Amino acid sequence: MNIILGSQSPRRRELMAGLDVPFTAINIHADESYPQDLQGGDIPMYIAREKAHAYAKQLGEGDLLITADTIVWLDGQVLGKPQDEQEACHMLRMLSGKTHQVYTGVCMMTQKGIVENFVDRTDVTFKELTDDEITSYVQKYKPLDKAGAYGVQEWIGYVAVTRLQGSYFNVMGFPVDRVYEALKRLKQA
Amino acid sequence: MNIILGSQSPRRRELMAGLDVPFTAINIHADESYPQDLQGGDIPMYIAREKAHAYAKQLGEGDLLITADTIVWLDGQVLGKPQDEQEACHMLRMLSGKTHQVYTGVCMMTQKGIVENFVDRTDVTFKELTDDEITSYVQKYKPLDKAGAYGVQEWIGYVAVTRLQGSYFNVMGFPVDRVYEALKRLKQA
Repeated sequence: MNIILGSQSPRRRELMAGLDVPFTAINIHADESYPQDLQGGDIPMYIAREKAHAYAKQLGEGDLLITADTIVWLDGQVLGKPQDEQEACHMLRMLSGKTHQVYTGVCMMTQKGIVENFVDRTDVTFKELTDDEITSYVQKYKPLDKAGAYGVQEWIGYVAVTRLQGSYFNVMGFPVDRVYEALKRLKQA
Repeated sequence: MNIILGSQSPRRRELMAGLDVPFTAINIHADESYPQDLQGGDIPMYIAREKAHAYAKQLGEGDLLITADTIVWLDGQVLGKPQDEQEACHMLRMLSGKTHQVYTGVCMMTQKGIVENFVDRTDVTFKELTDDEITSYVQKYKPLDKAGAYGVQEWIGYVAVTRLQGSYFNVMGFPVDRVYEALKRLKQA
């Protein structure tokens, strides 16, 4: 099996590397829009599939493509990547003092089509953040490439996240335990 | 405040550094035995205090010493650092397929005495591990310096930990969010 990770996220590449399974990483450019009636975990499941389909024609025999997408879900609303620092601050003020969900959808595809498609959910509780904490984090870390405007492995994750329920790695963007299990299933099949 | 982290754990030093607060790290050699009637979180609370007391006389004015201790607690029993690879495998077989607790006790001390002493708890669920997975992890990562014979930030954490309840950083050995809050309280006092 020739594993291809279709993600430009350095965090996903690092987590995949931690599984000690050889793989190649590539970038896939896919349309990340989705039907507006999708809710919660169905959204990143859908986008992960779209990313896989965008590369499908380039898959050779023995190739296994893995794609993923992560969203932050707060009170029935998606928080995507912020457009600018102002929106990042706004998102963090929304997350402050609340519990939100992080969903990562994963899709695995071979030449024959999709072989695995699942979603992992983690509940993340933020303490109440002060405006000072929010502004200094956004100015220093510029979390514009991160869904919900935060990186759990950064300063904000250290001070704000008082409670997780589920997988930590899923919050980083890649539920490695589920990926590992899926790879085991595919090897045995 | 001149913060001194009394821990030789590279993971604790790294987590403390992530708080963006200046500090010095030192090693403290303390007796890590404890009264046998202590249970669960009271054990690392006690050991963290003992570590602080072992350094107390060297504290100057304005110094704030932070010490910590972490244990793995499974079905009313402490899993410490394994003596050798065989014991490491044995511990991992015990943890396999079960939920255990990780407790980290933290003690903060100034010249005047202890100013903070608290414990943080995280519930960690392991999936069923195969003997192959256990042996190859122990041989490759040699987790002899880790309570319970595992590092959550290593391969075993990626594949075995299916669920956390509480703080991830606490499982790494240092509940940074609680430490940050305590430092804020002390600054305001």
